[in-house]
Amino acid sequence: MADVLIIMGSDSDLKVMSEAALVLDELQLNYDLTVVSAHRTPDRMYSFAKDALKKGYKLIIAGAGGAAHLPGMVASLTPLPVIGVPIKSSNMSGIDSLYSIVQMPPGIPVATMAINGAKNAGILAGKMIGAHQPDVMKKVISYTAQMEETVLDKAKKLEHQGFKDYLKGM
Amino acid sequence: MADVLIIMGSDSDLKVMSEAALVLDELQLNYDLTVVSAHRTPDRMYSFAKDALKKGYKLIIAGAGGAAHLPGMVASLTPLPVIGVPIKSSNMSGIDSLYSIVQMPPGIPVATMAINGAKNAGILAGKMIGAHQPDVMKKVISYTAQMEETVLDKAKKLEHQGFKDYLKGM
Amino acid sequence: MADVLIIMGSDSDLKVMSEAALVLDELQLNYDLTVVSAHRTPDRMYSFAKDALKKGYKLIIAGAGGAAHLPGMVASLTPLPVIGVPIKSSNMSGIDSLYSIVQMPPGIPVATMAINGAKNAGILAGKMIGAHQPDVMKKVISYTAQMEETVLDKAKKLEHQGFKDYLKGM
Amino acid sequence: MADVLIIMGSDSDLKVMSEAALVLDELQLNYDLTVVSAHRTPDRMYSFAKDALKKGYKLIIAGAGGAAHLPGMVASLTPLPVIGVPIKSSNMSGIDSLYSIVQMPPGIPVATMAINGAKNAGILAGKMIGAHQPDVMKKVISYTAQMEETVLDKAKKLEHQGFKDYLKGM
Amino acid sequence: MADVLIIMGSDSDLKVMSEAALVLDELQLNYDLTVVSAHRTPDRMYSFAKDALKKGYKLIIAGAGGAAHLPGMVASLTPLPVIGVPIKSSNMSGIDSLYSIVQMPPGIPVATMAINGAKNAGILAGKMIGAHQPDVMKKVISYTAQMEETVLDKAKKLEHQGFKDYLKGM
Amino acid sequence: MADVLIIMGSDSDLKVMSEAALVLDELQLNYDLTVVSAHRTPDRMYSFAKDALKKGYKLIIAGAGGAAHLPGMVASLTPLPVIGVPIKSSNMSGIDSLYSIVQMPPGIPVATMAINGAKNAGILAGKMIGAHQPDVMKKVISYTAQMEETVLDKAKKLEHQGFKDYLKGM
Amino acid sequence: MADVLIIMGSDSDLKVMSEAALVLDELQLNYDLTVVSAHRTPDRMYSFAKDALKKGYKLIIAGAGGAAHLPGMVASLTPLPVIGVPIKSSNMSGIDSLYSIVQMPPGIPVATMAINGAKNAGILAGKMIGAHQPDVMKKVISYTAQMEETVLDKAKKLEHQGFKDYLKGM
Amino acid sequence: MADVLIIMGSDSDLKVMSEAALVLDELQLNYDLTVVSAHRTPDRMYSFAKDALKKGYKLIIAGAGGAAHLPGMVASLTPLPVIGVPIKSSNMSGIDSLYSIVQMPPGIPVATMAINGAKNAGILAGKMIGAHQPDVMKKVISYTAQMEETVLDKAKKLEHQGFKDYLKGM
Repeated sequence: MADVLIIMGSDSDLKVMSEAALVLDELQLNYDLTVVSAHRTPDRMYSFAKDALKKGYKLIIAGAGGAAHLPGMVASLTPLPVIGVPIKSSNMSGIDSLYSIVQMPPGIPVATMAINGAKNAGILAGKMIGAHQPDVMKKVISYTAQMEETVLDKAKKLEHQGFKDYLKGM
Repeated sequence: MADVLIIMGSDSDLKVMSEAALVLDELQLNYDLTVVSAHRTPDRMYSFAKDALKKGYKLIIAGAGGAAHLPGMVASLTPLPVIGVPIKSSNMSGIDSLYSIVQMPPGIPVATMAINGAKNAGILAGKMIGAHQPDVMKKVISYTAQMEETVLDKAKKLEHQGFKDYLKGM
Repeated sequence: MADVLIIMGSDSDLKVMSEAALVLDELQLNYDLTVVSAHRTPDRMYSFAKDALKKGYKLIIAGAGGAAHLPGMVASLTPLPVIGVPIKSSNMSGIDSLYSIVQMPPGIPVATMAINGAKNAGILAGKMIGAHQPDVMKKVISYTAQMEETVLDKAKKLEHQGFKDYLKGM
Repeated sequence: MADVLIIMGSDSDLKVMSEAALVLDELQLNYDLTVVSAHRTPDRMYSFAKDALKKGYKLIIAGAGGAAHLPGMVASLTPLPVIGVPIKSSNMSGIDSLYSIVQMPPGIPVATMAINGAKNAGILAGKMIGAHQPDVMKKVISYTAQMEETVLDKAKKLEHQGFKDYLKGM
Repeated sequence: MADVLIIMGSDSDLKVMSEAALVLDELQLNYDLTVVSAHRTPDRMYSFAKDALKKGYKLIIAGAGGAAHLPGMVASLTPLPVIGVPIKSSNMSGIDSLYSIVQMPPGIPVATMAINGAKNAGILAGKMIGAHQPDVMKKVISYTAQMEETVLDKAKKLEHQGFKDYLKGM
Repeated sequence: MADVLIIMGSDSDLKVMSEAALVLDELQLNYDLTVVSAHRTPDRMYSFAKDALKKGYKLIIAGAGGAAHLPGMVASLTPLPVIGVPIKSSNMSGIDSLYSIVQMPPGIPVATMAINGAKNAGILAGKMIGAHQPDVMKKVISYTAQMEETVLDKAKKLEHQGFKDYLKGM
Repeated sequence: MADVLIIMGSDSDLKVMSEAALVLDELQLNYDLTVVSAHRTPDRMYSFAKDALKKGYKLIIAGAGGAAHLPGMVASLTPLPVIGVPIKSSNMSGIDSLYSIVQMPPGIPVATMAINGAKNAGILAGKMIGAHQPDVMKKVISYTAQMEETVLDKAKKLEHQGFKDYLKGM
Repeated sequence: MADVLIIMGSDSDLKVMSEAALVLDELQLNYDLTVVSAHRTPDRMYSFAKDALKKGYKLIIAGAGGAAHLPGMVASLTPLPVIGVPIKSSNMSGIDSLYSIVQMPPGIPVATMAINGAKNAGILAGKMIGAHQPDVMKKVISYTAQMEETVLDKAKKLEHQGFKDYLKGM
């Protein structure tokens, strides 16, 4: 049984949204991932959102672009927390996606990530589950520690080589 | 039987949206008007949108603010044309409402009006029906002619009085 | 006799605007398509707009970019409904086009589409005519059903293959 | 022991942020609420964020305005999920607050709400805890149902009175 | 015979646009001032613009708000220089007016002023005529010199009083 | 003796600004063209602006990007009309250039063109001089007529070929 | 002899800019304060900027609004560091002021503050001088410590009273 | 011992930030340069900022992108002046970085540069130190004079060759 449902408005969003899945893999959390369009498959969206709680998901990650209605509509149809990922759009660089997702009216929150911030959606999912499952929290903490380690290694290397050589090596 | 269905996301939108109704009154077109929230009453939205065609409406006018999903979601659930009115929001002056309504993906158009442009929604409804019903078109033409007359009268008065006196009289 | 008049401010808009024509082809609606510039051929614009009603058009689709005046000016010269398509501009990504088209004053509506949303202009034209001609409405409904089918097929394939293989195949 | 820690950058944010607390009261969730400024009390922020997990909080709600660094900095110092509320600023209407909170780099998510969306922060907290505690989820569902009821009542009244009388009564 | 034609899209623009007239009064330049709406009186706009050259005007000042088409359309119908004044709009603070006026396509320039910059439109008119009429140029130079004098007087007073007393006196 | 002075903040602006010169060539107007940086050569800017009137120029065209101060500073130092061209910047697409040029305070107008609108700067120069020199006005009118002719020819060709063939030929 | 020169484009900026002076008073730093307009008194600006170094100032604080050229022009005329304060404008909320000041080209930096951030300009002046004068640095550190103390006191009071009583007392 | 500390949030910022270092090389000022991430290495940031004064730095240059918290957080942890460089981000072109850095609350100034304005950060560092060390100021003055010389040379060449030949040679 999966803890997380990852949906997106179009398969053109898959490249971005797969980053959420890859994080969940690292955190060893199960998920289902598919395409559900608020506008082109509204009936499918309705049943996915309405069934999510009883299917045992702990939260939903939804990515969409332009007039992005998927995260907000799903959030209105389920009591589960919904994480929204605004996908970068071709004409407005994702500002339209961001405003359509984050500016939800009182009553229906969507936990909004940065534009194209699918990786962070995966990490937030880990944090949300980890707050209630110590073994998951350990993996989140270790994931973050590795990230810090990577930066420290780069800093060390940069200080050692000097910035001119470091730039050449990039 | 009504030709036009006017819906809005909240009764706080009523003051703006009533301007659409008043135009339809002038053009002697019948309409139903009520509150339907995409986020707070998603089931109600579903049935309103799905039944609109068979109830005999010719088009739907939908107003909403913020992450405004009502016009786009209704448009995804009915083959009827949908006119969207972005309602001015308190924090972003309606830019969020505008982007959430106008930036619809290919496949699901919403005929978007200016921010708070409910009056124009009523006039566009008249034009859309008038294109197929000559008696309605006559009323639209006469409505527009009156508007022109009003401007011409003001121009005349302004030219006659001079701008300083005209300003005092405003 | 054509139902729809498609005009654009420059032949550089043709690639985008042709998408509206292709949708009308699918919906078996007749149209005329040409270049009419509000700024460079104002007399031509005047006669096109003033004659549109008596030529039997049911609506006009007008695309323009930058300080895009064509849709609004045409709308002020004809009682027919006008659908406006903001063309993506080189310096402001079409935000200027969008604001110049959508922010029309009370009295003169333009049914505004997304930036570069010419395909949706064609679909909206179909919906506007379909609301009064059942045979056209059938084609619109079938067009939408095909669109839904396409998404469902992709979803099925994605769920079957898993996202990693699906991404490789894109 | 409290489940939620609510912090804000300044006591001038209290009026907005108290809405989160009031929702938690309705959902019968315990919380601590205080002022912690990322810029004026960085040491206090450090110890609050670093101690949050061991103090037993399940999540943190952080509100801030302008160059709003509180939510993101707290998120970098704790493995707990952080909900960020961009407070409306006097000069940029909160766009600066929104961008400073939502555009977090990969690795450090902040669950961003709408500008001044503290009420939704409270509801999202309820959903996040409710996903793991059925008794809380019941309260969230009932809270949402009441909200739907309120809209339906207003719609009924509006349809019954007609919009002109309804407007007079507002 | 007047040198300058001042037109505006609505008498609600008069308060702002009258500042252009008052400057022309100071510079002792003759002008005609009236209301001409691109959208509500397109025929009137046509004849005003087409006749402007033969009526002897040297330039046209046109103010409009929202999807402001008046300056650009007039510029497309006359070889005279056109100064455009974007009027502050209620929902977008005049950003829409500015973009609709300034972003004119190659071929049809509009000399765009700041939002609500009608006073500067009058001064620019003076400069444009003054470049060809030395007596007018003298008045422009003297107008500017007075402006400088005023600032210098204030600076002197401020330095003399100290800023605390100066503030009290404001 | 030249009628027009064309200056720009950097030689990287030359490609854009040369379009103004090419229009003046077509209109047979003389001009001087050089680089004058408000920020890097402030003394040079001062003397160029202060001497412009007595050198016999009728107007100045000034192009600059980013925090573009050249047009406004020149306008504050000469009674001649100044046409400002906002150059597209690498990080803000020229929005910063536009605002820095168009939002001049009362007293110091700059006739602002579209972003990268140097061609229109040349045409406006022609119109400004043409309003006082009938032979120049004739050339402006003929220039505009050619432009209209070009659009009409394209429209004819498009209508004749049909849009599909026309698109192939582009 | 004064360490800091505070100038502003208009006496209407005095209310905001006086906050910088008040901070300098607290830090016991001497300053001169007056009005210098880049556009209305360009010669005065020239001499103020050119003389600043030899008059012994250590830095200049310059505030201006709209197309705000004062900070950047002064920075181009003196080797001293210049702190720029974008003043909130009536039509664009200071976005135009901010972009006109911060987007300076390579070679001429302006240390830009937040919109209306004159208080911070004063503090930055203290830090810049304090980095070279230990007695000033002590005052800056003590100023910051007081600020932290104030927040801690409020937090204590808020925690003690509870937020409902605290809100009543505001 | 170094006068300047240059830090950046990620090694991907190094290409931009190295321009600051190169200017300091030209001005013969010593600096340390490394990577310090506010979000991924918060402890490292804390110690770097807290130790900066006693390590003898005169100022800190900090570059970061997106929700850029590094400059502001460092400024809250040290009494030294902090120069912030907003790095151009992939989705918002650096507008998010700019707002996150410049809109600091009263009490904690960051001397903000243009987007990607690292070169200016280096020059401002030179000016800030030069105001207290005459030998450094001489180098700043000579650096600026060279810059002016370069522009004057280009202007001469452009005037000599004519713009058409000059463009070919670019």
